[in-house]
Amino acid sequence: MTNSTFLPPSFESDYNNGAHPEVLRHLVETNEAQSASYGFDVWSESAREKIREACECPQADIFFLAGGTQANATVIDALLRPYQAVIAVETAHINVHESGAVEASGHKVIALPSHEGRMTADDLRAYLKRFFSDPTWEHMAVPGMVYVTMPTEMGTIYNKVELEAIYDVCREYQMPLYIDGARLAYGLMAKGCDFDLAWMAHHCDAFYIGGTKCGALCGEAVVFPQWTVDNGQMTITPKGFFTHVKAHGALLAKSRVAGVQFDALFTDGLYFRIGQYAIDMAMKLRDIFEKHGYEVKPSPTNQQFVVLENSQMQALMKRVLFETWEPLDDNHTLCRFVTSWATKEADLQVLDDALAIAM
Amino acid sequence: MTNSTFLPPSFESDYNNGAHPEVLRHLVETNEAQSASYGFDVWSESAREKIREACECPQADIFFLAGGTQANATVIDALLRPYQAVIAVETAHINVHESGAVEASGHKVIALPSHEGRMTADDLRAYLKRFFSDPTWEHMAVPGMVYVTMPTEMGTIYNKVELEAIYDVCREYQMPLYIDGARLAYGLMAKGCDFDLAWMAHHCDAFYIGGTKCGALCGEAVVFPQWTVDNGQMTITPKGFFTHVKAHGALLAKSRVAGVQFDALFTDGLYFRIGQYAIDMAMKLRDIFEKHGYEVKPSPTNQQFVVLENSQMQALMKRVLFETWEPLDDNHTLCRFVTSWATKEADLQVLDDALAIAM
Amino acid sequence: MTNSTFLPPSFESDYNNGAHPEVLRHLVETNEAQSASYGFDVWSESAREKIREACECPQADIFFLAGGTQANATVIDALLRPYQAVIAVETAHINVHESGAVEASGHKVIALPSHEGRMTADDLRAYLKRFFSDPTWEHMAVPGMVYVTMPTEMGTIYNKVELEAIYDVCREYQMPLYIDGARLAYGLMAKGCDFDLAWMAHHCDAFYIGGTKCGALCGEAVVFPQWTVDNGQMTITPKGFFTHVKAHGALLAKSRVAGVQFDALFTDGLYFRIGQYAIDMAMKLRDIFEKHGYEVKPSPTNQQFVVLENSQMQALMKRVLFETWEPLDDNHTLCRFVTSWATKEADLQVLDDALAIAM
Amino acid sequence: MTNSTFLPPSFESDYNNGAHPEVLRHLVETNEAQSASYGFDVWSESAREKIREACECPQADIFFLAGGTQANATVIDALLRPYQAVIAVETAHINVHESGAVEASGHKVIALPSHEGRMTADDLRAYLKRFFSDPTWEHMAVPGMVYVTMPTEMGTIYNKVELEAIYDVCREYQMPLYIDGARLAYGLMAKGCDFDLAWMAHHCDAFYIGGTKCGALCGEAVVFPQWTVDNGQMTITPKGFFTHVKAHGALLAKSRVAGVQFDALFTDGLYFRIGQYAIDMAMKLRDIFEKHGYEVKPSPTNQQFVVLENSQMQALMKRVLFETWEPLDDNHTLCRFVTSWATKEADLQVLDDALAIAM
Repeated sequence: MTNSTFLPPSFESDYNNGAHPEVLRHLVETNEAQSASYGFDVWSESAREKIREACECPQADIFFLAGGTQANATVIDALLRPYQAVIAVETAHINVHESGAVEASGHKVIALPSHEGRMTADDLRAYLKRFFSDPTWEHMAVPGMVYVTMPTEMGTIYNKVELEAIYDVCREYQMPLYIDGARLAYGLMAKGCDFDLAWMAHHCDAFYIGGTKCGALCGEAVVFPQWTVDNGQMTITPKGFFTHVKAHGALLAKSRVAGVQFDALFTDGLYFRIGQYAIDMAMKLRDIFEKHGYEVKPSPTNQQFVVLENSQMQALMKRVLFETWEPLDDNHTLCRFVTSWATKEADLQVLDDALAIAM
Repeated sequence: MTNSTFLPPSFESDYNNGAHPEVLRHLVETNEAQSASYGFDVWSESAREKIREACECPQADIFFLAGGTQANATVIDALLRPYQAVIAVETAHINVHESGAVEASGHKVIALPSHEGRMTADDLRAYLKRFFSDPTWEHMAVPGMVYVTMPTEMGTIYNKVELEAIYDVCREYQMPLYIDGARLAYGLMAKGCDFDLAWMAHHCDAFYIGGTKCGALCGEAVVFPQWTVDNGQMTITPKGFFTHVKAHGALLAKSRVAGVQFDALFTDGLYFRIGQYAIDMAMKLRDIFEKHGYEVKPSPTNQQFVVLENSQMQALMKRVLFETWEPLDDNHTLCRFVTSWATKEADLQVLDDALAIAM
Repeated sequence: MTNSTFLPPSFESDYNNGAHPEVLRHLVETNEAQSASYGFDVWSESAREKIREACECPQADIFFLAGGTQANATVIDALLRPYQAVIAVETAHINVHESGAVEASGHKVIALPSHEGRMTADDLRAYLKRFFSDPTWEHMAVPGMVYVTMPTEMGTIYNKVELEAIYDVCREYQMPLYIDGARLAYGLMAKGCDFDLAWMAHHCDAFYIGGTKCGALCGEAVVFPQWTVDNGQMTITPKGFFTHVKAHGALLAKSRVAGVQFDALFTDGLYFRIGQYAIDMAMKLRDIFEKHGYEVKPSPTNQQFVVLENSQMQALMKRVLFETWEPLDDNHTLCRFVTSWATKEADLQVLDDALAIAM
Repeated sequence: MTNSTFLPPSFESDYNNGAHPEVLRHLVETNEAQSASYGFDVWSESAREKIREACECPQADIFFLAGGTQANATVIDALLRPYQAVIAVETAHINVHESGAVEASGHKVIALPSHEGRMTADDLRAYLKRFFSDPTWEHMAVPGMVYVTMPTEMGTIYNKVELEAIYDVCREYQMPLYIDGARLAYGLMAKGCDFDLAWMAHHCDAFYIGGTKCGALCGEAVVFPQWTVDNGQMTITPKGFFTHVKAHGALLAKSRVAGVQFDALFTDGLYFRIGQYAIDMAMKLRDIFEKHGYEVKPSPTNQQFVVLENSQMQALMKRVLFETWEPLDDNHTLCRFVTSWATKEADLQVLDDALAIAM
């Protein structure tokens, strides 16, 4: 096994690089030390403390799981009763790209319309109102929680007003709001994002901070914020969650692998610096495409969706790596270009040059 | 977060150290390179090729999952129909220490007697014979596969004759044999183990090679050996296993984290060197206890079970770290001491000294 | 407990009457006799033989379950692997009114557009083509079977061409076609239905013949037709289905309760006579509404959907019983009127009179 | 299909007869009336009221399900969180003869020793104490409820002291006690049973009253007693139980089929008369065997277990029907003889004669 000597720059995803150098360094420098397992290692404890601080939630319960689909299935199954369903938008990761993992643990995904990846509070309220006014509702899978992604699968973000409105509906219907933050670093640092991690932690009942796509080798931090409020009933960690995690096959024995990485990510604001850097690169990438006259879908985050004519797409694929997203018509395809902490100016230059040549 | 400046030597487990230096080095040296995800990275491919070679199974399908409980639940659910059960011994990890993960995916664990952690072919055949001769068997969870651990949870191992006899029963009843190799390195290198990885791969239908407990930070390699035999029907990868893995939340996005580590583990025989080293340390540890007059249960592997009088146990706990296994009577406890690649001669010296002083 | 002395005629459903008199008579006349249980009673055997004959499928395997949701969840779970999904239309009973029972056994329901309750082969083929050409399809719940209802939840039916086209797609993609026949008697006897039970049994892989809504007190007959074809691979009973049924809690101990009733339903064509009678009543009901100037949605079966102005609806509700189906606008509601073997001419007269008076 | 003209008397089970004549009569006399569905029919309401009265639990919630395995799986899944297990004895119906239905809905069955079918409070307390004092308990399926059968699968019964002791342990550990009363009529009327239905309803958190094996054609009444107590927290119906029942495929559309039968069973004490009659017959049957010198296991209920020499067993099988229970040695088999409301004196006479002749 060797590294390929030459590779075209890749904009395929934010999970085809190794760890951010600061994360890797922490893995190396801690490698010799012994530690407890199953989440009780000193680095996990340290990471939890730093995350609590960043969330301004001193009571928060935090668990480190290996991956995102796992985190979603585990949390959703813990928050629902067996006959309950989770509400998400059509394009939601849990509804499309998790191989039915939520259903595999027994729960229906109720799909609302997607507005460039976002759920709207109006759609949510209208759905719930209609649902519970249907005289046969007790014969249907009962909505028991709401799932949103921040940023969304389409690269868009929520603002304070939108997210708070969704959370208001959730509280009105007494169902928890859970936020999938697989790419949270990029959402929080996006231009136009008017809230920070602490604000978000105070406007939902559970969320996870994505590590895998934001600089770690693996690992997601599931957070139950448990901030103290008067009617705080729902903002608690589900009973027996530790065992529940293990029953889902999601408990890391050598938990330090996640703990050390999150400890690094939440030291000196690395998580947010990673987000900011990738956003800067994404905006430059966006400018390059627009400069060359391409249509780029609105997205303030590290995923950019570009309309390419199919022959152009084929030509471009020889110079840079990226993913096709969906066919738009017989001649055009929506393509996805993703930046990360590892994207280099030189990569953008290759892209710029490739677009300049004869396309 | 800092490393503690002084720590007593730990014999608590083989997963409270970081990665073996050669594994860590490979993580570092590959970190810069970009790669595909979801198992298609070059290191995963390379690791698979090396494992196939070590197994002498050129057709083997190999999947890297994050952890052991996950690997077990995922494979078992893939090999069984919904109404089927898996047979294991009472002390089996899936029956005791996996929080009901097998049942959580819908399957009963049928528990046979444990012979120092081992299943016997006689018990298995007797059970199956009795089961299928019961006129009401179609009203019971139907045994559909057999699960054994190598080495067992009690530190013991199977020999060729024993394992082949179990496999014969499996073939007679047309049910797959699956081997949980969480600590496989230590089993294969144990004194008295009369088979190697290749032999084992040809005498079962699925197994996993444990990484987490054998030198990696995380990761287990699930192997479907697919060796060529006349009636080789059962030794095939279950249809759709890739999707099945994801539906279990067990697919690593940044699969390189496992691929790189297994690539290192199967380079220059590292996996087996790790096993051999830990065994050597375990035998020395065993000698130390016996020298001081303690009863040590039979175990040729890296887990040693020692009978300690309770006050001695309390005293010893101040000098070295280890786990209590089970109370034997009011005054005695069975305690577990585990070695690994990270165990040092100096650790054993601390133990020896501790036992020498006034105990 | 007493019967109410006076009740307005009910068009609420086809399951708010007792058993058809011929079914009841058979329950009474067989009550004294002893029989085996779990499906091995003589009446179940007799019923199976009669159903095989009606299906012209001498090899068919037939199981009697208590209810429809149970039959659907049990069959679907038996035909799919854990990571697979069932395709249905949006309005399908399994997608709406079964409380997530399919998801509760681990499977996603993929919803295609509903054409007055029907699936089209074009939609199905287009979906499957798109699905399997998506490079990420292995990350999604994989469609593994197709579910249609005959007649549909909207009272419509399939014709030969439509059903055969769907079945062709199923065979092309090697996935079983399963037909939910909760109201099969009414579908097969509907004006415009150009096939019979035998034809249907030869154009799908599994189906159930509804008892509860077609004259029985309870019971549905799940049929695996197993007609002999060249590539008949899929038209077989799933292995271990008896045990699978019990694992779903769906095995009747005193199976005679279903066996006796189906034995009666398939004696002298009772099942079809029940269907025909209810259809005749439905067409008269339809004529009455149209005579009075109401809009009645197209439906050739025993469920009729009528548009009522809300104040008219309220007034009518005092004279006859029926269900509201869905609000159409602020002033109008779609209402459902259902006939059955128990609908009397006098009931229709009450309806006619009620509509005549001042509405 | 015809009744066989001659049949040997059957002692095979208490579910190979039809309905008790009074139950059948009520089915006939109510057949013409229309009613609501899904449990809201007048007979279900009436039956619930009568059961509440018999239980002296005016607040009790009562649901009618079709069968026993279904009732068990549905209730257990409703009372547990996903990672929790149910405790039962080894011989418990849920552990042996329900095809893994409890596991199929995700829960482990923890098996304690069986004392002639009974659990002891001592075993239970010892298990729970040991479980929760194991430092690794959070890595195991966590016991979340207790399941006992009354009468047991071995025909034995609990007395007040025994059941109350078990219930005390349950309350101490804050886990619900659920009683499977598949044959409750026979347990409550057994000689030696020192409590009645009302007492039992006040000493558990949920139970079901078996219909299928006690005179009905089908149907079990699940009762959540909800009697008012100071610390009554656990004695409540699980939230959303109606929908949960449907998600388990256990909701009867034509609920009258169960409602009418239970209405009859709880009119004029029929349920208890059925129990008493079968017990009387069982005691006579017992006397006959003992008179002829056979060993009969202790059982005060309608199931009698007799030791037969194998050639005698074969001979007897030609004269009367019964089930073999388990082989005792090469020459002897434990056989089960069951009485019911349908057992006739003449049946016992045939048995007596058969035993008298040459055996």
